[in-house]
Amino acid sequence: MQRYFLKSAIEVVPEQTFELTGDAVHHWLTVMRAQPGDQAEFVTIARDVAVGTLVTATKAAATVQVMSVTTPQVELSTPVMIACGVSKGDKTEQIVQRGTELGAAGFVFFDCQYAVAKWAPNKRARKLARLAKIAESAAEQSHRTMVPTVSYQPDLATLVTAVPHAASVVAWEESAKQGEHSQLVQTLQQLPTGEPLLAIFGPEGGLTPAEIETLTAAGVQPAGLGPRIMRAETAPLYLLSAVSFWRELV
Amino acid sequence: MQRYFLKSAIEVVPEQTFELTGDAVHHWLTVMRAQPGDQAEFVTIARDVAVGTLVTATKAAATVQVMSVTTPQVELSTPVMIACGVSKGDKTEQIVQRGTELGAAGFVFFDCQYAVAKWAPNKRARKLARLAKIAESAAEQSHRTMVPTVSYQPDLATLVTAVPHAASVVAWEESAKQGEHSQLVQTLQQLPTGEPLLAIFGPEGGLTPAEIETLTAAGVQPAGLGPRIMRAETAPLYLLSAVSFWRELV
Repeated sequence: MQRYFLKSAIEVVPEQTFELTGDAVHHWLTVMRAQPGDQAEFVTIARDVAVGTLVTATKAAATVQVMSVTTPQVELSTPVMIACGVSKGDKTEQIVQRGTELGAAGFVFFDCQYAVAKWAPNKRARKLARLAKIAESAAEQSHRTMVPTVSYQPDLATLVTAVPHAASVVAWEESAKQGEHSQLVQTLQQLPTGEPLLAIFGPEGGLTPAEIETLTAAGVQPAGLGPRIMRAETAPLYLLSAVSFWRELV
Repeated sequence: MQRYFLKSAIEVVPEQTFELTGDAVHHWLTVMRAQPGDQAEFVTIARDVAVGTLVTATKAAATVQVMSVTTPQVELSTPVMIACGVSKGDKTEQIVQRGTELGAAGFVFFDCQYAVAKWAPNKRARKLARLAKIAESAAEQSHRTMVPTVSYQPDLATLVTAVPHAASVVAWEESAKQGEHSQLVQTLQQLPTGEPLLAIFGPEGGLTPAEIETLTAAGVQPAGLGPRIMRAETAPLYLLSAVSFWRELV
């Protein structure tokens, strides 16, 4: 069933109706060609999921009758913020799309020394808007009950201060080469349920020793993610899978 | 440093030379423009890694002097065979590329009922050859010491018989919906180190209940991979990350 995220604080009560507005109306009525009687799922800001039936529609709004309301638990009990160096091509899009499927709470992109790509300041807002769209669409498809946030920070020092977290790791190849393999597990073991984890990843070119120093001075722990070299856009997927496995399956 | 997999059983002994032949010669000399004195890494069939210096070269062969030989342990201690329904577009390529980075021992693609794509029999060999190339190139980049195999099986029943394994799971959405979340952990706990795991994933359209029945009758365990819906090409990455996390970090 098609799923939409409600952008305003709408209360969904079984048997009552609500007015659907915004992009979802266009998508449901025009793209999906919904007719009165058709159903879709609507996720509220409070993460409730309502199954709704289309009652009547104009071009800009639709009246939807609520059939049922549930509160599925599909979000990671450890909110994970994925911070990545700006990458070229569609790598940032891939990180957001797959990372959303794997349960990320949000994504932060940052400028750094070895970044192959730079986001021109005048294009930044447009890029973030596009990534936010990708996150929303991936969240719908993976039946999430929240849309991950997407934001930008100019550098690592600012990022560590600006992004709230209770624990933080940076994936560092040198760590892995030196045989470091217990930091991620330790961090997860010590992190209380519900507290956010900030996980930082370099761009294709990696982070510089100076950048790693900035991070460790700020309390971020270098962590190895196994003995194989992963590309910049694969490492965040490994981390998210590991957190899900640890918190949801083990 | 550029890395090449040796295709024939060449013994690498420090200070001695060997003849490099095949595709690697073309790539190293013509694409990378190697000159005498330049170095590269050469992985033997026995998974030793030799650093070699180019001594002399013709168009078809190069003489390489071995500088050092190491035997890095970068392969998963649980060989994982990833079996996926044939997918459309570049999804099979993505599975092979990223799955190789994440340590897969091999990939098997199979035909099934809800597959959106079919491999025409006359194109199958070409598709497999292309995927094998992608696996090799990803194995070089991720510093693996083996190239994952790529093969095809006509259906699930044949696949389960043909692919050697000591344990097997099938990722099944319905399993996850019913709250199944301990099978993968149980399977990993019971599987002796070194024994191969076969992990089966449906195509975009999923597997049919009859296909799941065929698998369970053959001893394959349905396993949930957390409460979020993953796309066909993301689920294998989750599983490989989870196996690495469990075997290499925990």
